[in-house]
Amino acid sequence: MADLNELGAKQVADLIAAKKASSEEVVTACIARIEEREAEVGAFQYFDADYALDQARALDNGPVKGSLHGVPLGIKDIIDTRDMPTGNGSRIYPDRRPISDASCVALSREAGGVILGKTVTTEFAYFFPGKTKNPHNLGHTTGGSSMGSAAGAADHMFPIGFGSQTAASVTRPAAYCGTIGYKATTGDFDLQGVCGLASSYDTLGFLCRELEDISLMREVLIGDASPSPRADSAAPTVGFVRTPWWDQADAATQRVLEGAADRLAQEGAEVSEPDLPLGFADLADTHKLVMSFDAARARAYEYTSHPDKLSPQFTALMEEGRSISYQDYREAQTRSIECRRQLKELMSDYDVLLAPSAPGEAPEGLEATGDPLFSRMWTLLHVPSLTLPIGTGDLGLPIGVQVVGATHGDGTLISDAQWIYDRLK
Amino acid sequence: MADLNELGAKQVADLIAAKKASSEEVVTACIARIEEREAEVGAFQYFDADYALDQARALDNGPVKGSLHGVPLGIKDIIDTRDMPTGNGSRIYPDRRPISDASCVALSREAGGVILGKTVTTEFAYFFPGKTKNPHNLGHTTGGSSMGSAAGAADHMFPIGFGSQTAASVTRPAAYCGTIGYKATTGDFDLQGVCGLASSYDTLGFLCRELEDISLMREVLIGDASPSPRADSAAPTVGFVRTPWWDQADAATQRVLEGAADRLAQEGAEVSEPDLPLGFADLADTHKLVMSFDAARARAYEYTSHPDKLSPQFTALMEEGRSISYQDYREAQTRSIECRRQLKELMSDYDVLLAPSAPGEAPEGLEATGDPLFSRMWTLLHVPSLTLPIGTGDLGLPIGVQVVGATHGDGTLISDAQWIYDRLK
Repeated sequence: MADLNELGAKQVADLIAAKKASSEEVVTACIARIEEREAEVGAFQYFDADYALDQARALDNGPVKGSLHGVPLGIKDIIDTRDMPTGNGSRIYPDRRPISDASCVALSREAGGVILGKTVTTEFAYFFPGKTKNPHNLGHTTGGSSMGSAAGAADHMFPIGFGSQTAASVTRPAAYCGTIGYKATTGDFDLQGVCGLASSYDTLGFLCRELEDISLMREVLIGDASPSPRADSAAPTVGFVRTPWWDQADAATQRVLEGAADRLAQEGAEVSEPDLPLGFADLADTHKLVMSFDAARARAYEYTSHPDKLSPQFTALMEEGRSISYQDYREAQTRSIECRRQLKELMSDYDVLLAPSAPGEAPEGLEATGDPLFSRMWTLLHVPSLTLPIGTGDLGLPIGVQVVGATHGDGTLISDAQWIYDRLK
Repeated sequence: MADLNELGAKQVADLIAAKKASSEEVVTACIARIEEREAEVGAFQYFDADYALDQARALDNGPVKGSLHGVPLGIKDIIDTRDMPTGNGSRIYPDRRPISDASCVALSREAGGVILGKTVTTEFAYFFPGKTKNPHNLGHTTGGSSMGSAAGAADHMFPIGFGSQTAASVTRPAAYCGTIGYKATTGDFDLQGVCGLASSYDTLGFLCRELEDISLMREVLIGDASPSPRADSAAPTVGFVRTPWWDQADAATQRVLEGAADRLAQEGAEVSEPDLPLGFADLADTHKLVMSFDAARARAYEYTSHPDKLSPQFTALMEEGRSISYQDYREAQTRSIECRRQLKELMSDYDVLLAPSAPGEAPEGLEATGDPLFSRMWTLLHVPSLTLPIGTGDLGLPIGVQVVGATHGDGTLISDAQWIYDRLK
């Protein structure tokens, strides 16, 4: 059997429920891994091993709380926790102590989750990076913004970490760190107590190593009772979408994607390449415009009261957002609604779409988090997206594929992705 | 000229800009009114006259900040303020001091607004009432949840107050208190720092006495540059919608509504009675279901950590929300999307719809806030809504009409409502 820190959340929960392991043992294994690796990887913004063990022991000694009983969770540091500081990745809030838990944390605790610690985020989940390094090569970025949750899940520090996505903040770090990344259908998960960046797009997600863990978290957060994903379900109909930015994907990424499409066809999936509606080529720019406008409102307090403590990147985002007229914003939103309608029509012919997660492997250097280009369109379209780590590039770093489902078809997407993952990994 | 505390926000801003009044004079007039009436009406959860004057004097002595320069604003106490406590109407948070301003407060301050004080809200903007009494009859409710902002605007304590609406929380108190109430198109205004109840519906709004003040606030918050409303614009095409619940409106309300429709026709508006699509009769129940499901997530922390400090009403809402399956919730949302599409089609024949704001006058007693029935459908449909005080009932208390516009047609709605209001008030 794998070490306890290498198991998935559902596997851990099942072991604890069967009394084959205690939460203390699981958390101890995670702590050991963190102590071994944290100085190099830097996944945590806040971590207190004793406090994590206290929670685990209390759960071991108490009644079974729910389906996460005893499972350690990494919490992205834009998500409020009543017992740990929450800094939003910003120099404005080094000592911020929320008075209450975010809704997703409260529901996780209620189900028996152990809040292991707070994982590093970029500044307000935008571009300016935190300290985390790619566990596969410490000289390379993890991608942002859910960098600590991605690195920690990839590096076996915990089975699952909360992330959030407004542009590419789950998809890209998952791809760069070689772990599973899930961005929910926009609106599925409540965001109370989560620091917002752009209300048109903000959504929660997860970084983990097992697809069934995403089903588990959907059950905890919204009571979604879709059955756990199965590898032996029917082959999905797959649309291979190179996207309008295909020539910006490097050769290895193109190779991995094309190889995946071929392999799925060999395995019995019906695979074809749909033509995206013409207007979709503008959606990366449309996403940028809407996000900027929204962000300039959402973080107005920080921009007006603490301009000296914002990064140049964040200040530029605020100023860009303020330069956009309400009319241009509304036109962008109207175009977006039409594109969502067109995608829904297109999805009636497909179970899932297969697309690049990122232009290539994690770029070298820790000053930037890579290009969000390949996620902007899907985020704008509000569809659920899963990134699966299925290849490596020329530098030996991970390459992922994005599997996209229909809006609110998250349960089906997870099942189809399991079928795909079992044939590609 | 009216006393300074009786002017609208735009009128005050214009006076100050023309140096015909100072912010200190305006705020002093508001304070005098508050001191005269607050002991009876109880509009404020937090009010510090000296601090309000400090803000006014600083603005008088500084450079012009923006289009709200020197204008006093009431802030509903679910909206975070960095310099005043924010209690969310809950016994859980008697001393809560936010570390930052809500985005709408930050933008108002940046434009030169004076944060006059925090206005009373029901518990988490749901049903359990605060202390505010109806200024027209202290034995009657103001309606909820934006009760302090409605009473304060109606009673000339300030020109405009922030409200929010998830069911009927602007429309109903506006109608009961005899003031203008505006609920924006859902999604138009950012909600960072505003305590949420149900993310499918939560939206900001305003309680005020002049329609042009709403245009002013839209310019401040989202840069909407729609021209100020004009009484001499073209007559709008009006759909008179009795709604499926017409027989639950009392005789006076029916009389006021029918009289308004007749009068608008006499004044040159094209008025007809559209048939609502069949499914609309279920929308009040659908709204209740979705709101309960959402609220059970949004306020999970309070429900799981402080159950003893919640009202029985709020606990019942949480339990109702937890009893609803995700599948039923999704079906309700899917029906809602279809109804929004049907309304959009119907609105292609009308500029505005005219409908009841509430079943009647403000009910007697302070233990409840009246029935939200006549707002649930419009809130679910995400359309902008204005309540105009145009009549009185058998008890001599105000009766309002609701003027509903097309989604994101808020600027046009305000103009059409001005035409209507000038002919009905």
